[in-house]
Amino acid sequence: MEALKERIVKDGRVIGDNIVKVDAFLNHQIDMVLMNEIGKAFYDYFKEAGITKVLTVEASGIAIAAVVAQHFNVPMLFAKKTQSVNLDGKMLSAPVHSFTKKKTYEVLVAKRFLNADDKILIVDDFLAEGNACLGLIDIVERSDAEIVGIGIAIEKGFQQGGKLIRDKGYDLCSLAIIDKMSETEGITFK
Amino acid sequence: MEALKERIVKDGRVIGDNIVKVDAFLNHQIDMVLMNEIGKAFYDYFKEAGITKVLTVEASGIAIAAVVAQHFNVPMLFAKKTQSVNLDGKMLSAPVHSFTKKKTYEVLVAKRFLNADDKILIVDDFLAEGNACLGLIDIVERSDAEIVGIGIAIEKGFQQGGKLIRDKGYDLCSLAIIDKMSETEGITFK
Repeated sequence: MEALKERIVKDGRVIGDNIVKVDAFLNHQIDMVLMNEIGKAFYDYFKEAGITKVLTVEASGIAIAAVVAQHFNVPMLFAKKTQSVNLDGKMLSAPVHSFTKKKTYEVLVAKRFLNADDKILIVDDFLAEGNACLGLIDIVERSDAEIVGIGIAIEKGFQQGGKLIRDKGYDLCSLAIIDKMSETEGITFK
Repeated sequence: MEALKERIVKDGRVIGDNIVKVDAFLNHQIDMVLMNEIGKAFYDYFKEAGITKVLTVEASGIAIAAVVAQHFNVPMLFAKKTQSVNLDGKMLSAPVHSFTKKKTYEVLVAKRFLNADDKILIVDDFLAEGNACLGLIDIVERSDAEIVGIGIAIEKGFQQGGKLIRDKGYDLCSLAIIDKMSETEGITFK
């Protein structure tokens, strides 16, 4: 998706050769115009898949998932990272290690929202090592619902998450795949 | 807002006399059609306020804030609850005690996204004791930006948050104010 790639180059900030900060438009302050284009891009790619629900994990996936769900005219569901007194009933959980936050946490989804007739599109802002996405995949695989696709805004193509997910046979659509990046030479997309 | 009140009565589940679970449509699984009506309701109320940015706190405020920001055609900004390596620069923070999660955490916003020409609408899904909202108010008051309104989906009118915020002089719009609730007698709105 050209508009996203151009925005990453314009407003993203590369730190070292592994981190690109997109907090000006994607995961802290959020440009809703760009987000709407992201939603449309995922709709165009997955519109024949019969999607009934969009699943993400808190927090930075929520805005993307909400807009994608609008485009498909279906509900959105987000996995929670902490047990709250406001969650009850049968929960499905998976451990997820966050490299950016340097800790492992459980992600939780109420089983009653993943039903036998649900065709799930998993979305997230970033895909790097793939831990969050693999956790969501694990949860849906243990439910009665079916995963029909995975949509990622920015994939770090030099980390293993994309390969792990494609090797599992899932239809993964990444709108911008970073091939390499460095503070001095900037970002190269695949 | 009648559609929200009707949905709370239909799909909300009252636990004891203090908790109403709305995880089927508002803060775990999210009905994007209802969310769009919520966004429109806040737009109708605040449309003359010159809003330039919508602020919330992760996680359950994000979907509402995203849709409200769409209606105003402005960016959305969400306060983060944990320090991540993806946050840098000058951060404004405030301590917030969560009664549902029984802990106190810092909420963080990058100062550079709250500018002198910004007119901020704060939104959240719930207002009870008011801690999260007061934390966001504190952050914006210490920035160069101005708070022009506060939009809440569900206010628990029998707790003190609404009074604290109105006593500070802020224009608080709550779409559904719960006067009292119990498992046996259900929910009464103000």
